[in-house]
Amino acid sequence: MECKITLIPGDGIGPEIVGEAVKVLNKVADKFGHTFNYTKILMGGCSIDEYGVPLTDEAVEICKASDAVLLGAVGGNVGNSRWYDVAPNLRPEAGLLKIRKDLGLFANLRPAYLYNELRKACPLKEEITKDGFDMIIVRELTGGLYFGERETKTVNGILEARDTLTYNEEEIRRIAIKAFEIARKRKKKVTSVDKANVLDSSRLWRKVVEEVAKDYEDVTLENMLVDNCAMQLVMNPGQFDVILTENMFGDILSDEASMITGSIGMLSSASLGKTKLGLYEPSHGSAPDIAGLNKANPIATILSAAMMLRYSLDLDKEADAIEEAVAKVLSDGYRTVDIASKETKEVVGTDRMGDLIVANI
Amino acid sequence: MECKITLIPGDGIGPEIVGEAVKVLNKVADKFGHTFNYTKILMGGCSIDEYGVPLTDEAVEICKASDAVLLGAVGGNVGNSRWYDVAPNLRPEAGLLKIRKDLGLFANLRPAYLYNELRKACPLKEEITKDGFDMIIVRELTGGLYFGERETKTVNGILEARDTLTYNEEEIRRIAIKAFEIARKRKKKVTSVDKANVLDSSRLWRKVVEEVAKDYEDVTLENMLVDNCAMQLVMNPGQFDVILTENMFGDILSDEASMITGSIGMLSSASLGKTKLGLYEPSHGSAPDIAGLNKANPIATILSAAMMLRYSLDLDKEADAIEEAVAKVLSDGYRTVDIASKETKEVVGTDRMGDLIVANI
Ligand SMILES: CC(C)[C@H](C(=O)O)[C@@H](O)C(=O)O
Ligand SMILES: CC(C)[C@H](C(=O)O)[C@@H](O)C(=O)O
Repeated sequence: MECKITLIPGDGIGPEIVGEAVKVLNKVADKFGHTFNYTKILMGGCSIDEYGVPLTDEAVEICKASDAVLLGAVGGNVGNSRWYDVAPNLRPEAGLLKIRKDLGLFANLRPAYLYNELRKACPLKEEITKDGFDMIIVRELTGGLYFGERETKTVNGILEARDTLTYNEEEIRRIAIKAFEIARKRKKKVTSVDKANVLDSSRLWRKVVEEVAKDYEDVTLENMLVDNCAMQLVMNPGQFDVILTENMFGDILSDEASMITGSIGMLSSASLGKTKLGLYEPSHGSAPDIAGLNKANPIATILSAAMMLRYSLDLDKEADAIEEAVAKVLSDGYRTVDIASKETKEVVGTDRMGDLIVANI
Repeated sequence: MECKITLIPGDGIGPEIVGEAVKVLNKVADKFGHTFNYTKILMGGCSIDEYGVPLTDEAVEICKASDAVLLGAVGGNVGNSRWYDVAPNLRPEAGLLKIRKDLGLFANLRPAYLYNELRKACPLKEEITKDGFDMIIVRELTGGLYFGERETKTVNGILEARDTLTYNEEEIRRIAIKAFEIARKRKKKVTSVDKANVLDSSRLWRKVVEEVAKDYEDVTLENMLVDNCAMQLVMNPGQFDVILTENMFGDILSDEASMITGSIGMLSSASLGKTKLGLYEPSHGSAPDIAGLNKANPIATILSAAMMLRYSLDLDKEADAIEEAVAKVLSDGYRTVDIASKETKEVVGTDRMGDLIVANI
């Protein structure tokens, strides 16, 4: 099979981790007889340096013409804040939110599970995680507060700002269908999270999700309020299989969920739309403080590449091969520094971690 | 001193826990020479049974005419959902949100700290909590998505629902001032949480908070994005002193924060406005499953009564006396069943816990 993959190395550690993922993809291509043609585009700080904007329309066109997009990370941290806090002219509207909207990527999938080998790093007590946990957050990605009308104006001399949270039936239905389809292949449970005791949009959300559920009699639907969900994630993460939620709640809950795994450097993500074209990226950020030091953990990006093979290119066997290789390298005791502990056999750099995974495919 | 306290026992365990708080208040009145006059009103399911609505205007008038309001809990759980999920006609608009708005209670204060005696129940690993944590969430309570315009309508045959998130300068300024005043009496740090990389309302929030910060040079201000905050709470709760945030983010984060303490049955809360009048209630719910069984933990309500003495009645000494009595009873090894562990000297019921606290004042 021959396919076109757009690479967006981005900023910070992005280029290094995407580089390792490409090594792994090349090994897969070799072994399974595929041809992956790569095109690189700029996004984030590096695009601003070159073109004055975080993402050009031309770059988006290249993505659209490809079968899948693999993204490293964009932006950098400044202290505890992220880059766009300190540079409001570089708002994500023009970068990450633009690519999501332009490619129609309405479904963001973020798996969060406890790695047996990395239990040490999990912030939750062992009694809570003794049976492990393995969930996937299905977050609506092109609606809600992120893309609603907004306005800041002066009313009677007082500054006032307004954002709007809108969802229609169709937007809710298509993301709900994604969640139920995924649940069907997993533990057959969907927890739909909303704030239906307060919001009209959540009441519509709940209504439509319940309608969709009727077509999936093999899947159990549970409704949960967002504040309760934020608690349940910490108290009993094992209860979740698929969490389905709207854009802003999904932003908050997926970050909370990835943090309780203790291995955010290991978690991949996929953003999907109506077609096969998808965007794949690690759940972590661009970590500018360690950029170029050969310290970054490439595993989340390599696993994102595996998701890409599975969801956009229908190469399940190949995806399995990558995932198994990652598991093998971990069980052999190799770790990058972010996930190292006393039991680690060898702490390795970014490139060596990539090589080890390649060698196991 | 003579003052008027409105009691709202509410539903579920509400009447029991408020009963214990009243015993404690009466002991304080005795010992320190005050007169507390109580008026009871109905709210929640019990008010619906009696009047058809969760809160009558007459009941609100009684609250307004008093010096402070002590609330037990309203509503009941049905499975994992709360009552209003299954009974949309009993939406909180007509109850909890009505009382907040009618009394102008724009500031919700929810302390979340790790009880040394209750470390066992904390879901976070000891290495994360070894230095303890002690934060207070200051949540804006009468604005944002909770009270914005909303509408559900059909557009071209498709159902669409819209909520609006509006804040003006003055709403932000008054809650920011509360947070800075509180921080000044504590560890002098405010973490203001928003989503300024996406929302106009958050950008205005950040601007106004930064202006207010200029009047508090002794207090450090840090801005944090809400998704990051949801992670930091789990990873490093000790970094927080005062968390200042808008209504919906506050709802989510304060529940997450109380859950990581492992002792939600111990956490009080206060809702304050422009005047001294405040509403005080435990952070937990009405737990209908154990109602009437003399099993509920009255401590959160008793500590809410202490907050009431401190914030609405200026009786600091008296509030200290209650808090010290609670600490003493805990260190003596008495526990209600929700916080019991192997080391507990004696598991006691609701009423005995109240008696023990009374005896220590
Ligand atoms: C960068 C930001 C706009 C983005 C979001 O809020 O969606 C990020 O937090 C994410 O989760 O991908
Ligand atoms: C009952 C509900 C409307 C309420 C809220 O969301 O404010 C509750 O969750 C709370 O935090 O007091």
